[in-house]
Amino acid sequence: MSSDTTFDIAKLAKKARQASLQAAQLNSEIKNKLLTAMASNLIANESTIIAENAKDISAGEAKGLSTAMLDRLLLTSERVQGISDAIIDIVNLPDPVGSRSAMTNRPTGIEVGKMRIPLGVIAMIYEARPNVTAEAAALCLKSGNAVILRGGSEALHSNLAIAAILHDTLKEFSLQPDMVCVVPDPDRSVIEKLLTLNQDIDLVIPRGGEGLIRYVSDNSRIPVIQHFKGVCHLFVDKYADINKAVNILVNGKTQRPSACNSLETLLVHQDIADEFLPIAATALAEFSVKVHACEKSISKFTGGSLATDEDYDAEYLAQEIAIKQVANYDDAIAHIQQFSSDHTEVIVTQDYSRANEFVRRINSSVVMVNASSRFSDGGELGLGSEIGISTSKLHAYGPMGLEALTTEKFIVFGEGAVRK
Amino acid sequence: MSSDTTFDIAKLAKKARQASLQAAQLNSEIKNKLLTAMASNLIANESTIIAENAKDISAGEAKGLSTAMLDRLLLTSERVQGISDAIIDIVNLPDPVGSRSAMTNRPTGIEVGKMRIPLGVIAMIYEARPNVTAEAAALCLKSGNAVILRGGSEALHSNLAIAAILHDTLKEFSLQPDMVCVVPDPDRSVIEKLLTLNQDIDLVIPRGGEGLIRYVSDNSRIPVIQHFKGVCHLFVDKYADINKAVNILVNGKTQRPSACNSLETLLVHQDIADEFLPIAATALAEFSVKVHACEKSISKFTGGSLATDEDYDAEYLAQEIAIKQVANYDDAIAHIQQFSSDHTEVIVTQDYSRANEFVRRINSSVVMVNASSRFSDGGELGLGSEIGISTSKLHAYGPMGLEALTTEKFIVFGEGAVRK
Repeated sequence: MSSDTTFDIAKLAKKARQASLQAAQLNSEIKNKLLTAMASNLIANESTIIAENAKDISAGEAKGLSTAMLDRLLLTSERVQGISDAIIDIVNLPDPVGSRSAMTNRPTGIEVGKMRIPLGVIAMIYEARPNVTAEAAALCLKSGNAVILRGGSEALHSNLAIAAILHDTLKEFSLQPDMVCVVPDPDRSVIEKLLTLNQDIDLVIPRGGEGLIRYVSDNSRIPVIQHFKGVCHLFVDKYADINKAVNILVNGKTQRPSACNSLETLLVHQDIADEFLPIAATALAEFSVKVHACEKSISKFTGGSLATDEDYDAEYLAQEIAIKQVANYDDAIAHIQQFSSDHTEVIVTQDYSRANEFVRRINSSVVMVNASSRFSDGGELGLGSEIGISTSKLHAYGPMGLEALTTEKFIVFGEGAVRK
Repeated sequence: MSSDTTFDIAKLAKKARQASLQAAQLNSEIKNKLLTAMASNLIANESTIIAENAKDISAGEAKGLSTAMLDRLLLTSERVQGISDAIIDIVNLPDPVGSRSAMTNRPTGIEVGKMRIPLGVIAMIYEARPNVTAEAAALCLKSGNAVILRGGSEALHSNLAIAAILHDTLKEFSLQPDMVCVVPDPDRSVIEKLLTLNQDIDLVIPRGGEGLIRYVSDNSRIPVIQHFKGVCHLFVDKYADINKAVNILVNGKTQRPSACNSLETLLVHQDIADEFLPIAATALAEFSVKVHACEKSISKFTGGSLATDEDYDAEYLAQEIAIKQVANYDDAIAHIQQFSSDHTEVIVTQDYSRANEFVRRINSSVVMVNASSRFSDGGELGLGSEIGISTSKLHAYGPMGLEALTTEKFIVFGEGAVRK
C-alpha cells in the first residue's frame, strides 16, 4: 500500500477501457439494481469501512492534519448512511444513455438522428473526502462509464475499503469489477503517467484546490474539466429592489462562505449607492464580514480597508468581500468581464431590459437575475447529483450532472441508400 | 511576409479575445448582412484575389509542389464564386446563438434554463485550400465567435488577400476587424506559441494530414478537436440484402476514395460469404479496386493479396480495400471495436434486432444501417456547412456544424429568491 513507483497504471487503464465496453451496454434496470445493491452493501459493511477509516484518521493525526481536514476525512455510521442515500438518489435519476433525439428525414432517403452514449473511461482525481469514491463511482456507472478513482493518500484505506465493497457487488452481478478502479499508489508519478493515457481514458475530472487543478490541466494529454475558482459577482443596478438586493447579498456572502458559489465581489451602481451601501454595511456587519471597498464607497464601511485589484481577483471563501461603486451599467459589465472566473454572476434589477441585457452580455456558466448565487449548484438547478463544475466552455459549462458524462453519436437509417 | 519568429501571436490572440466580446453580441440580422456583404465583396475583388493567388501558384511551382497540391491551391473565377456561394449558404443557416432551452420552475421559486452562447475565440490550423479561410471565418462569425486563421505557408498570399476583403467589410459595418485574424507568419514556432495561449483561445481545430493533427494534439494547452483518420467499416451480416450490400460497398469504396468517409474495410458474415463475395469481387474489379483479403476469403479475389493487421488499420484513401470473413456477429463487433477510428461504421442487414444491436453496441461518431458511409458529412446529415469532423467524444462527436461552435450557459430568474 505504500509508495511503489512501479505500479502499472497503464495496465489499470486498459482494464478500465475493457470494462467500459460492458458498462456502456448495461440497461437502466440492471444499472439501478446494481447501484441499489451497492448502497445496501455499504451499510451492511459499515463496521469494516469505519475500521479502515480509523487507520486513515490515526495516520492523519500522526501527520498533524488540521481538525478541519480530519473532520472531512472521518466516516461515522451516519456518514456511511449519507453515502448510501446519495447512491439511492442517483438510482432515482433518469438514465441519459440510449435516448434518441428527434429523427429527421433527408431528401436522399436516409433518416438521421442522434443517440446519447457514455464517454467511456473517466478518471477522477480528488482530495480528502472518501464519500466522493462511492458517489463518483455511482454517477459514472449510472451514465454507462467506467471510472478510475485517485483519491488523496490520506484517505487511501477508506477508499480501498469502499472500492472493495463496490467490487464485490459488481461480482455478485457477474459484471467486470474493473468498471470501478481505485489507484492504490498515492505517488504523484502515477498521476503524471495517468495523464498521458489518452488512448484509454476519455476525460479527467480533478476536484480539489486550485493547485491540484492547475497541475492536472498543465500536464494532461487527456481533456480536463477545469474549475479553478469561483469569484462570483453581485451587481446591484440603479433600478434594484433594495430589499431583494440586501437579502441576496447576505445570503450569497454569509450562508456558506466556504462554497465556491458564494459571493466575493459586490458592484453597486452609483445612482443607488448612497441609499444601498449604508443598509448593506449594517447587514454585513451583523455577520462580521470584513470589507475591502473602493475609494468612493469606503466611507460607508466602518473598519473597511481599501480594495486593490488583488481583492477583485480574490476567492476569499470566508466572511470577507470586495465592494466597488460603478459609474454605469457598462462599467459593471466591464468589471465582471475582467475579473470573472466564469462561475456565477448575479444582477439585481427591476428593469426588464437591463435584466435581459445582463443575461445576454455576461457569458459566465451561470447567470442570474434577482436570485442568490448560492443556487448555482447541480441539485438546486435540477440536475440531481453533480460530479463537478466546469468553468471552461468546452463539452460542459457550469454544474455537471449525468448528461455531462455522456456525448451523442449520429445514427442513420436507410433502405440501401447510396450517395449520388 | 517571410518567416519572422518575433511575430507577436500572443498580442494577436488578445485582440481576437477583445473582438470576440463584440462578435458574441451581434444579432442574427447584423451577422447575416455582414456575411452577405463579405460574399459580394469577394466577388467584387475577384481580380485581386486571383492575382495574389498567382503569386502562391508560381512559388508553389518553383518549390515543386505536386499537380494535385497546385490544383487545390488554385483559385479561378469559378472557385471564387464557389466561396461566395458557400458564405451565402451559411447566411441561410439558423443562428444557434441566444436560443433558450425549455425553462423549468424549481420548488425554491427560481426558474432555470439554458441559453446557447459562442465559445469565444477559435483557432483554425489548416493546409492548402484557401477557400477554408473564407468559409471557416463565415462559420465562426455566424456562431458569434472570433477566429484566428493559420493556413499553410503555400497559400499565404491568397489567404491574406481574402482576409483583407473580410477586414474591409467588417470596417464598413463599424465592427472590430480582429474578429477575423490571419497569422501572417508561417513559422512553426508561431503555432507552438499559439497552442499555449489558453487564456485567449478557447478551441483549436486542426484540418489536414494526420501529422499536423498529431502535432497540434500533442502540443496544445487548449482543447483540440481531433480527427486523425477515417477507417470506416462495412459489415455485411448474414441477413443482408445482397443487392443493397453491393451498392453500399461500391458507393462507399469507389465514389470518392480520397474522402475520409470512404470505406476501408469490409467484414462479411461467413454464412453469406460464399454467395456475397463473388458478387463483391466482380463489382470491385470493375473499378480496379485492389483487394487485401483474409485467408478464408482470398480465393474469391483474383490478384488479391493477404490482409495483415496493417491493412485492417489502413486508411487507404485510394481504390484499395481490406476484406475479412467473420465467424459471427460478435466477431464483427470485436473487429470494429479493435480497429475503429471512431468515424463511421455501417451494417447491412434485414434483421430488425441485429440492426438495433449494431446501433447500440457500436459507439463510433456515425453509425449507419443500410446506407452508404459517404453520407457521413455535415451537409448530408443536415447540419449545413461543416467546420470539421470530431472523432473524439468530448464536446462534439462526428461532423461539426454551427452548434458545435457554441456551448450553453445556465440562466436563472428569481424574484429575490435566497437559499434556505
